[in-house]
Amino acid sequence: MSKENPAIAALLNDDPGTRRRRQSTENSEGAISDQPDLNELDRLNQIYFFAARLFCEKGYDATSMSAIAEATGITKAGVYHFIPGGKKDLLFAIMSYGLDRLDRAVIEPVQTIADAEERLRAIITNHVKLVTRGSTEAGFNPVTVVVDEVAGLSPAHKAKIDQRKRVYVDLIRQTLEELKAEGKLKEVDVTVVAFSLLGMVLWLARWYRPNGRLTGDQMADEICEMALGGIMRQ
Amino acid sequence: MSKENPAIAALLNDDPGTRRRRQSTENSEGAISDQPDLNELDRLNQIYFFAARLFCEKGYDATSMSAIAEATGITKAGVYHFIPGGKKDLLFAIMSYGLDRLDRAVIEPVQTIADAEERLRAIITNHVKLVTRGSTEAGFNPVTVVVDEVAGLSPAHKAKIDQRKRVYVDLIRQTLEELKAEGKLKEVDVTVVAFSLLGMVLWLARWYRPNGRLTGDQMADEICEMALGGIMRQ
Repeated sequence: MSKENPAIAALLNDDPGTRRRRQSTENSEGAISDQPDLNELDRLNQIYFFAARLFCEKGYDATSMSAIAEATGITKAGVYHFIPGGKKDLLFAIMSYGLDRLDRAVIEPVQTIADAEERLRAIITNHVKLVTRGSTEAGFNPVTVVVDEVAGLSPAHKAKIDQRKRVYVDLIRQTLEELKAEGKLKEVDVTVVAFSLLGMVLWLARWYRPNGRLTGDQMADEICEMALGGIMRQ
Repeated sequence: MSKENPAIAALLNDDPGTRRRRQSTENSEGAISDQPDLNELDRLNQIYFFAARLFCEKGYDATSMSAIAEATGITKAGVYHFIPGGKKDLLFAIMSYGLDRLDRAVIEPVQTIADAEERLRAIITNHVKLVTRGSTEAGFNPVTVVVDEVAGLSPAHKAKIDQRKRVYVDLIRQTLEELKAEGKLKEVDVTVVAFSLLGMVLWLARWYRPNGRLTGDQMADEICEMALGGIMRQ
């Protein structure tokens, strides 16, 4: 029971469906404790976070349901209460959860922004902050990393995840096409730019450390300036 | 026995230590066949490529040594001849192999380039072409993806891989510092730029398809223009 885990706190904080009645606390083993009145959705989100972290640290193969239970600070039976299908369902559940968060934090808030340049800045800024908020001291954002694991899903699940990712890429591409039509874009390939933006933002999940030199806001500014400087006419 | 697998061909072609006496050919099951005189290093490289591809497609857990043998078109005993430690050694071996290729194709050729801007362009161009050359029709470069899997290595192996990656990041950062000292760089954070460049290039391993609209050369030009446009003073 020591300091708050910022990634877990952020994860609970910005899920509008959850009410966080107590601070998440982490003991020296990394297990959540002393939170008897967390609601069910909070618990489920914690299971996703800790399972993703274990998958990143030890690999999917080497992570047992018992280890996930221990990290989350509940019993193995408790984990199966939330995830009846067990480990084989967890990858898809974590990816769906990560994409739900992307919907709420990035895609939905920009729908009402009419100006394409302003919308592009908001997409980059919101997404950078989503990634940095959920990053851990180990130097990765486990949920973001797991969302982009290419392997291990059934074909049906993979099709669903790919479809949701396509919606996001299309939003970015459409915004770039609008900028192009307005004459604001240099001579660039819209598809290459869309994926390059994604690469810059998603790579943060593999190197950004909270409590480092730059905050999430500063990181968003840096990446906006570099990206827009590279593609917009002066 | 039909058309050549371009990723495997590229993989054999640009390893200076190998001599490729026959075309690698791929039958309809994707297994390499009819290449009795491939030398040992070629074979080893093929095992790395096909193992990485299976890890990406099915996951590390679900990939057996038998499946790797079948994909490579040799016996399971043959695979163990090359990889005596079996699957547990394969992740580290593939990552080391990927980083050897990065050394040869990107890091070594730029050492003699005195001009920092020219060196940065060469780093980006060589790296983009390394990633696009090894990409498969499935939309990923399996070796590049496996090099950046964060999980599953022993601490000692992880330390070795991290150290080699750090050498590359330092090369990019040092090149950017030189540009900054020459007054050629905008007001940007050199670390953020270094990792953003890496994100743009490495993300290609998760979306670029050979035989698509753009060649590797065109992709390198697009990414150079976007990246340098974003960070260099006019």
